Amino acid sequence: MKFSEILAKLGCAAECNSLSSQTALDPEIIGVAQVHNATTGTLSYIEGDKFATYVSETSASALILPQNEVLQKQATERRIVWIVARDPRLLFAQAIALFYQPFHPAPQIHPSAVIDPSAEIGKDVYIGPHVVIQAGVKIGNEVCLHPNVVIYPEVQISDHTILHANCTIHERTQIGSDCVIHSGAVIGAEGFGFVPTPQGWFKMEQSGYTVLEDQVEVGCNTTIDRPAVGETRIGYNTKIDNLVHIAHGCQVGKSCAMAAQVGLAGGVTLGNQVILAGQVGVANQGKIGDGAIATAKSGIHNKVEAGAIVSGNPAVSNKLYLKASAIYKRLPEMYKALKKHAQS
Amino acid sequence: MKFSEILAKLGCAAECNSLSSQTALDPEIIGVAQVHNATTGTLSYIEGDKFATYVSETSASALILPQNEVLQKQATERRIVWIVARDPRLLFAQAIALFYQPFHPAPQIHPSAVIDPSAEIGKDVYIGPHVVIQAGVKIGNEVCLHPNVVIYPEVQISDHTILHANCTIHERTQIGSDCVIHSGAVIGAEGFGFVPTPQGWFKMEQSGYTVLEDQVEVGCNTTIDRPAVGETRIGYNTKIDNLVHIAHGCQVGKSCAMAAQVGLAGGVTLGNQVILAGQVGVANQGKIGDGAIATAKSGIHNKVEAGAIVSGNPAVSNKLYLKASAIYKRLPEMYKALKKHAQS
Amino acid sequence: MKFSEILAKLGCAAECNSLSSQTALDPEIIGVAQVHNATTGTLSYIEGDKFATYVSETSASALILPQNEVLQKQATERRIVWIVARDPRLLFAQAIALFYQPFHPAPQIHPSAVIDPSAEIGKDVYIGPHVVIQAGVKIGNEVCLHPNVVIYPEVQISDHTILHANCTIHERTQIGSDCVIHSGAVIGAEGFGFVPTPQGWFKMEQSGYTVLEDQVEVGCNTTIDRPAVGETRIGYNTKIDNLVHIAHGCQVGKSCAMAAQVGLAGGVTLGNQVILAGQVGVANQGKIGDGAIATAKSGIHNKVEAGAIVSGNPAVSNKLYLKASAIYKRLPEMYKALKKHAQS
Repeated sequence: MKFSEILAKLGCAAECNSLSSQTALDPEIIGVAQVHNATTGTLSYIEGDKFATYVSETSASALILPQNEVLQKQATERRIVWIVARDPRLLFAQAIALFYQPFHPAPQIHPSAVIDPSAEIGKDVYIGPHVVIQAGVKIGNEVCLHPNVVIYPEVQISDHTILHANCTIHERTQIGSDCVIHSGAVIGAEGFGFVPTPQGWFKMEQSGYTVLEDQVEVGCNTTIDRPAVGETRIGYNTKIDNLVHIAHGCQVGKSCAMAAQVGLAGGVTLGNQVILAGQVGVANQGKIGDGAIATAKSGIHNKVEAGAIVSGNPAVSNKLYLKASAIYKRLPEMYKALKKHAQS
Repeated sequence: MKFSEILAKLGCAAECNSLSSQTALDPEIIGVAQVHNATTGTLSYIEGDKFATYVSETSASALILPQNEVLQKQATERRIVWIVARDPRLLFAQAIALFYQPFHPAPQIHPSAVIDPSAEIGKDVYIGPHVVIQAGVKIGNEVCLHPNVVIYPEVQISDHTILHANCTIHERTQIGSDCVIHSGAVIGAEGFGFVPTPQGWFKMEQSGYTVLEDQVEVGCNTTIDRPAVGETRIGYNTKIDNLVHIAHGCQVGKSCAMAAQVGLAGGVTLGNQVILAGQVGVANQGKIGDGAIATAKSGIHNKVEAGAIVSGNPAVSNKLYLKASAIYKRLPEMYKALKKHAQS
Repeated sequence: MKFSEILAKLGCAAECNSLSSQTALDPEIIGVAQVHNATTGTLSYIEGDKFATYVSETSASALILPQNEVLQKQATERRIVWIVARDPRLLFAQAIALFYQPFHPAPQIHPSAVIDPSAEIGKDVYIGPHVVIQAGVKIGNEVCLHPNVVIYPEVQISDHTILHANCTIHERTQIGSDCVIHSGAVIGAEGFGFVPTPQGWFKMEQSGYTVLEDQVEVGCNTTIDRPAVGETRIGYNTKIDNLVHIAHGCQVGKSCAMAAQVGLAGGVTLGNQVILAGQVGVANQGKIGDGAIATAKSGIHNKVEAGAIVSGNPAVSNKLYLKASAIYKRLPEMYKALKKHAQS
């Protein structure tokens, strides 16, 4: 589609763009691409100053630019059409949706699915081959259950939620609307509860519940366990990447994000808009305040204040961590200097 | 059920409890709860001094208390019935089982299961929809195979073992009795064995075996590999959490516990009653003695003595780690001080 | 088979072996074993000097030895037949294949598989029970799809590739020939792309592609995501262990190896023959040069030069890391010494 048409569809007409000065330059755009390997006919974006040098090199025909007149001038000189956005990555995300429709099967209940007669199934659902739905399950409208999904008894799944292939939802689980559960994820399995006795580990039955509020996304092969008593809860709009572990009884707030391989031990509490980078671990009963961020591989043992940025294991403020880890490399010379002092 | 009935069922009649002094106070108990969000009619517990302050706040109607007369008095004053236990958490675990029966399907072989005619199937088994059982497999009595489980040829599974949905058991695997394999776990797949050559990696065939002794529990999406030669073995009563990796040829003793996202590299040996907290890693051929504990995120490269508690990466004694990591935060000021000294 | 026959099959006739001096000693070999628990009648190997002491203890009847005359003499004295190899582990890997044939089902399309009529299926394939193959999929010759595999629309899988049970291949994925995808792995699912807005996370559609070149091996429950734009690519002969996460847009070179629980964040680039040990993490846009090695649990935040060996988090040269981490244990005494200095 024409660049002008993209602008119109994205609702950008009033904003600053190259068509306002160069009305004749309105190329056909056939797709979206990353700026460093874009080809002719594609739309790409520059996020802040980091990738700014690509404006002079990219083969893209159209760019989403930040509010930076130098970059706009550069693009114009290279005959690349452009549009300015406050958040170029967000506008690019919206632009992708103009060129791509994710695979979404049409409503159907495949004859090989095994559905207990007591299950309640909503309207316009897709239930793929070999799906298993057990007794007392309630499935909302326009839910999509991809092949080989298994749903244990009494689970509730609300409208428009998508479960990808081979994932498993255990009993005592409630999943909100507009959620996405990716392939191989396991929700609501028994928490890891054992009490030591002289005869070995005694299993504590996990009689609690698991609740995912609306708009939660759970990554591939991620596991979210139910607790012995009470509930494990994932708040509205929280996004969880692949291979994350969320143990029994965790309370995760709204609009949090957890990157891959994060692990939350039992009873961890996360506020709202908490961000945990890859491979972060939070110990038993840890508490993380609203808007806090933990950088990759942090180990959190107690409490993180709202708004804090922490790093390292045990986690300290990111500022202190950066200083201390820079000096870590100098430990050998420090030790040598100290020994010399001691001898002098 | 009445509090007095709970005491009787738990076999606690002879022990110290509030009914011995206040026979009239015998409330109806309808469930179990965590002490900090218990509601009227529920039974909860206090584990040691840590949660002691909750006795004065909780809405629970009944409490399992540690051997602490102050707490007993407090509870009595608040008209909360109580019972004393040496191990309150263990008694609470037993109490949960009075109020909750885990989902356990009745014996049945679902017609959609694909079972090789050479497989031997015990009595009173449950084989769910879309289970696949291949040639030469032996399944014991009262085994429960949830939907979509796949069992490769020649596997043996003993009595009362439960395999949850979507898990996969590979050839050359033997699973004991009273085991639980959680959803998505993969047992007995090929170990990661490749030899570098000028033409690239040469695959070493994995001709060994995987053995899980009785009462082993394996978490969701955990992977336990078989070795090139010899066997991978998980000892009696060992409990493994979600997303753990146990590589080819590991020897794990009895009654160990591994928390989520632990990784054991090839040929690691664990003694009995070893505890590895979340995200611990043990390098190739590492050896950990009986009763040793590694705290979260530890990296173990060699050997840990029996009974030791280790932390950090590379792991050192927990005592040393606590000191050193406290000083880690002071590295910037130490460096400054040293520089000052050097200049003076 | 006779030891002499093994030599012949391995093509070792011309090389240095015990039969050249002791023609009469040619025992029957019935299997392969690790040297420390080998039994009579088995063949084992000694890799370098590390396990050399086992020559004097092992019950193996035959050994593959490194180029070390002392070990050869020892073996001869103990009447153990032997052969010398430049790379004993490689020759042992070849020897295993003489005694073991991995399970490989005969060509068949199981009637319970659900295959879209538009899919193109090659010759001599095995498609196991409950496999699901969706529209437009192309499957090469002699491909093996174990039970309960799910393949989303338009996927291409080339000749001789094996997909183990319960794994999931998403749309927009292309898998080369001679690959092995282990049980529970998920290839080509949506990358973790969300843009923060005042209303919460906005989902960036993942319209890119995932490509696995020939001879790639992907471990159990490993996840490899597709990107928003462009492609995620795993190079020829690269081997990936269990529970690894490879995020959207990563570019992995040829003949790399990643041990279990490694995590690559978005847009990471690995050269050829890179080795990442267990639980290594590489941050967003990280770049690792050809032949570089990161030891277990390293955290890589920027760039690693070709050929470098790095360790720690943040990763530094392995040499520096070994020194610094040895001194880490001395931090308490260093701090004490510094305080004493300051007071003096």
